[in-house]
Amino acid sequence: MPTRFELANAVRALAMDAVQKANSGHPGMPMGMADIAEVLWNDFLVHNPANPRWADRDRFVVSNGHGSMLLYALLHLSGYALPIEELKNFRQLHSKTPGHPENHLTPGVETTTGPLGQGLANAVGMALAERVLAARFNHDGHSVVDHYTYVFVGDGCLMEGISHEACSLAGTLGLNKLVVFYDDNDISIDGEVDGWFRDDTPARFESYGWQVVRNVDGHSAAEIRTAIETARKSADKPTLICCKTIIGFGSPNLQGKEKCHGAPLGDAEIALAREQLGWPHAPFEIPEDVRGGWDAKARGSEREQAWNERFQAYAAAFPQDAAELTRRMAGELPDDWSATVEQLLAQSAKADKPVATRKASKAVLDVLAPKLPELFGGSADLSESNCTDFKGHKAIRTGAFDGNYVNYGVREFGMSAVLNGIALHGGLIPFGGTFLVFSDYARNALRMAALMKQRSIFVLTHDSIGLGEDGPTHQAVEHVASLRLIPGMHVWRPADPFETAVAWTSAIARSDGPSALALTRQNLPPQAHGASHHDGARRGGYVLWESSDSDGGTPELILIATGSEVQLAMAAAQKLGAAGRGVRVVSMPCAEVFAAQDAAYRESVLPSSVRKRLAVEAGVSLYWRAFVGLDGDVIGVDRFGESAPAAAVFEYLGLTAETVHDRALKLLA
Amino acid sequence: MPTRFELANAVRALAMDAVQKANSGHPGMPMGMADIAEVLWNDFLVHNPANPRWADRDRFVVSNGHGSMLLYALLHLSGYALPIEELKNFRQLHSKTPGHPENHLTPGVETTTGPLGQGLANAVGMALAERVLAARFNHDGHSVVDHYTYVFVGDGCLMEGISHEACSLAGTLGLNKLVVFYDDNDISIDGEVDGWFRDDTPARFESYGWQVVRNVDGHSAAEIRTAIETARKSADKPTLICCKTIIGFGSPNLQGKEKCHGAPLGDAEIALAREQLGWPHAPFEIPEDVRGGWDAKARGSEREQAWNERFQAYAAAFPQDAAELTRRMAGELPDDWSATVEQLLAQSAKADKPVATRKASKAVLDVLAPKLPELFGGSADLSESNCTDFKGHKAIRTGAFDGNYVNYGVREFGMSAVLNGIALHGGLIPFGGTFLVFSDYARNALRMAALMKQRSIFVLTHDSIGLGEDGPTHQAVEHVASLRLIPGMHVWRPADPFETAVAWTSAIARSDGPSALALTRQNLPPQAHGASHHDGARRGGYVLWESSDSDGGTPELILIATGSEVQLAMAAAQKLGAAGRGVRVVSMPCAEVFAAQDAAYRESVLPSSVRKRLAVEAGVSLYWRAFVGLDGDVIGVDRFGESAPAAAVFEYLGLTAETVHDRALKLLA
Repeated sequence: MPTRFELANAVRALAMDAVQKANSGHPGMPMGMADIAEVLWNDFLVHNPANPRWADRDRFVVSNGHGSMLLYALLHLSGYALPIEELKNFRQLHSKTPGHPENHLTPGVETTTGPLGQGLANAVGMALAERVLAARFNHDGHSVVDHYTYVFVGDGCLMEGISHEACSLAGTLGLNKLVVFYDDNDISIDGEVDGWFRDDTPARFESYGWQVVRNVDGHSAAEIRTAIETARKSADKPTLICCKTIIGFGSPNLQGKEKCHGAPLGDAEIALAREQLGWPHAPFEIPEDVRGGWDAKARGSEREQAWNERFQAYAAAFPQDAAELTRRMAGELPDDWSATVEQLLAQSAKADKPVATRKASKAVLDVLAPKLPELFGGSADLSESNCTDFKGHKAIRTGAFDGNYVNYGVREFGMSAVLNGIALHGGLIPFGGTFLVFSDYARNALRMAALMKQRSIFVLTHDSIGLGEDGPTHQAVEHVASLRLIPGMHVWRPADPFETAVAWTSAIARSDGPSALALTRQNLPPQAHGASHHDGARRGGYVLWESSDSDGGTPELILIATGSEVQLAMAAAQKLGAAGRGVRVVSMPCAEVFAAQDAAYRESVLPSSVRKRLAVEAGVSLYWRAFVGLDGDVIGVDRFGESAPAAAVFEYLGLTAETVHDRALKLLA
Repeated sequence: MPTRFELANAVRALAMDAVQKANSGHPGMPMGMADIAEVLWNDFLVHNPANPRWADRDRFVVSNGHGSMLLYALLHLSGYALPIEELKNFRQLHSKTPGHPENHLTPGVETTTGPLGQGLANAVGMALAERVLAARFNHDGHSVVDHYTYVFVGDGCLMEGISHEACSLAGTLGLNKLVVFYDDNDISIDGEVDGWFRDDTPARFESYGWQVVRNVDGHSAAEIRTAIETARKSADKPTLICCKTIIGFGSPNLQGKEKCHGAPLGDAEIALAREQLGWPHAPFEIPEDVRGGWDAKARGSEREQAWNERFQAYAAAFPQDAAELTRRMAGELPDDWSATVEQLLAQSAKADKPVATRKASKAVLDVLAPKLPELFGGSADLSESNCTDFKGHKAIRTGAFDGNYVNYGVREFGMSAVLNGIALHGGLIPFGGTFLVFSDYARNALRMAALMKQRSIFVLTHDSIGLGEDGPTHQAVEHVASLRLIPGMHVWRPADPFETAVAWTSAIARSDGPSALALTRQNLPPQAHGASHHDGARRGGYVLWESSDSDGGTPELILIATGSEVQLAMAAAQKLGAAGRGVRVVSMPCAEVFAAQDAAYRESVLPSSVRKRLAVEAGVSLYWRAFVGLDGDVIGVDRFGESAPAAAVFEYLGLTAETVHDRALKLLA
């Protein structure tokens, strides 16, 4: 029977050896946190290595994701489908052991981490989803949603601002099943943190309303056990366990120093560490008894089986709820979803009064929310402005999780990473609102949603100079274009209620990636939409209108526009059409979806022979040069905006139907 | 003699009236913080309305910048060049009273605020600059740098993550002359903050090592006075003054409610507020005695005059220091700057060994730092990786400000906004490093640097898939392109030591805006640079090489590349040239600077007749479509990267000289 220390040393050795073999990586954290992980995984963590997708498993997040070898070692040792060959291939092309953990690549990895602080915020989202689903689905005597979320964090995570946002929110909401282990090792990359990080972290977390377990020896299994037991007893507060650890524990010359954080220890030092730890085994060799001590397959299978039995009893008592929970956790939409969409689009196409797309968005939510109870909304303190406060929304409050809406407070980054955590947990489709310009604050979380292929929906209103008086600090000019550059992000900028409905329903139907909806503050006139637009708009770009001269044939000139500028293109085109010119207006609410269409469709919308092209968007023009080429033209905003009423700003910056008309004429000349 | 309450009511009335006239704006904060502002400005603030640029003035920052009318009222009443007409023009086109305060537009506005939390972080930068310059320039009996930095913040600022980063750093450093007033009014836009923000804020700030003055009645001049006196006595800690206030104070039906935060009160309610406040005067009318009570021109002039006398004595005793401080505060470079640059460029052009541009960057800093003592470096806990730790750098530590470097900790956003604050203060040229991918965390601060036209320099290393094993979370693919979209940002992506020297010297010489330097982790071969390149590289894009067939004439094909891909373009071009094709290689280290050149120069580099164009950059391709048009081609990375050694990633993603050669041949066919 191996000792706990021996079990932990298996993690240390695998981390040292894999990093050394890759000649790249971070041994310090796995060696420092191995003892904590050993106690958590062997004594507490409820999971089944044979089924990483078991709905009610505990979630385990390594927010200090550079310590990926800790996680890979744990997954390998406990019995996940991660053979030793993968650990030998650490950080190599197409391995399942990339430099930082990636959720969609490696079984058992709950979230992609590395960008510091975000794993912690994801975990807050997971813990929130658990409480919300528990409140919705559990019944007396039937607890089918009931798991913990455990998180490892380092000094870096806690220095990051997002840790403040996420943990202040977690404390406010009282997420009692969230347990965070702080790897308090006094070291960050620049050296001893005392020079740049002197927070009294326990006091800080108590100020957030957390339970804090102080002064835990992170190398004492007994102290770690007691701390976890304390954490699990918390009825109304998340828990921070402050573990004093030694980075690179076991390396006689490098432990406790920044040098072991992010570089191989070297063969000589590894040999010395083996000696010091009493680990005589060859690289990547794990003795059978140590393997046995880690193997969680049998107890994992039992735990899931027990849950399955509980769930069967639940299904017998509450068949509808059971079916609903199963559907939601599978990420499937309701059976009548297609019908709902068709009805919504048909209805939206009938809009005949000017309306802001943010308000059109609320109208869509009002229709969808009753049909899609997994919709889970919120806003970073701009609920009314973002129009995210759909009819029948109910806000989560401290300890009261029976709801479908979160007032996230002024925490854009925290909110966005929490949305990702909710999406990763499953069972809810999260969306959250802020002003488009403040997508900057949250930007890396939007990127992570795309990298993780998660259905997070970002509602970004006040999408251009059209917000008017708040001025350049609040006027997004580069944001739509720059969000489009994130691989895998779908950016919708609808022109009216119909396109807004298309945007929302597309975002919801998209199960493998995030969407951002850029919505106006100001009213826009609805466009006329024929039946062909239903398909076209869903393809991201389509022929909205063309003059009779080009009808069916090849137009002389194509106007491309999005959102609030579609009306300008339409006005100019109709004037040109009336003057006998062959003009086409292409509305392009989502350029990424359009780009993903087959070449024939794209050619049918933007015939390559037509080089007289003019794009109009109230944002930086460079993006659209890709569509109009060296012979075309773009009307955009290549400067910061101005504080003034919206109409005055549009006029002053030349975003008018007249300008569009005149620049089109110039191209036609 | 007007009472203090009457003085404060002048601010309230101006705020109500201006917002009402504009039919847009935020009356709640100015009405709630008017009493605090009145005490601070009339009893403590050292400033001279006639000279908003006086070097040793106290800095006053409204971090909750939506309360702009508070600031405009203060500036107007105390005697700045901001006549009442400007207040009547609040939020109108070309007024000096935009929706949020803008530093370059309105005399007396120290920084542009509105994006919450950033003003606070700017203020930390100002307070830091003050301490650093004081440590450098003051001598016994000669205190020429000696001022306070006062900041107003709201709940929103304190919910934002950046408040954690900036205030944790300020506490660690012991910025004792920083005084923050917390407008603790229990309200944010969504309503009573209790639902989403329950921090024990005083305890939180004490955990950062701040002095906290609790429970100040924000409407009691006496309590506010005492609190400020306590703050000013702090020898080693920044101070947070927690002021209990009522938002919209004076509005009988709306005070204390979120409704008065961001909308006009309405004429009827304003009339009632006038009654309740005892302010019978017409809109925009300020009685003479109230004006007199606010007028700070005489005492401001006296204060500056006294300082001028002190400075003359200082100049007599320390003429070199006086000249140096004067030069630095004027933002002027040393006399020998041009010579330094020429020498550096000549030397850098001689590089003959492969070197990473991050290391070339350190070599540049090693040369420049001794000649440019105002260079003030730092890194967000990546000093060695970013190579920001130039020779002779000395880190600031708690209470020890005699240095030129800050270990910012893992606080990218905080660091970047602090850089902006340092730049705004003057006397130092700040730069700070992180990985390019984490520019995402800081993005809005980079935007604000551009909007504020500040000389902040962002050193962004590990600039592409070339960072290798750390994988997609750390591999910037969209970041160079997306930073280029920020109006006014100069993004340099140099190819070798010579271009790195051009990038740094251009960034330093640029006094009206920020620069971002995207630098490689991996080694790059130096290119051959003739004399013409000195001018060309400084113009942002230039002909690096062309085959003898196109020499002087028009090439058949142009290859455009930046940074680490210039070597690929060169290899492909030389092979094509050897095969008799007329090929030109354009290196484009800074597309924004190139775009600002005259048309003739641009045409000379990229002749419009040459449509066979191929751009190569290890990032999203869309950006370069603007340069190559519909007939050209781009080799880029339109997906997230991979965790593997750099060479394997470049190979796998098709970023090779062979691919460039083959795609060029295809264009030439």
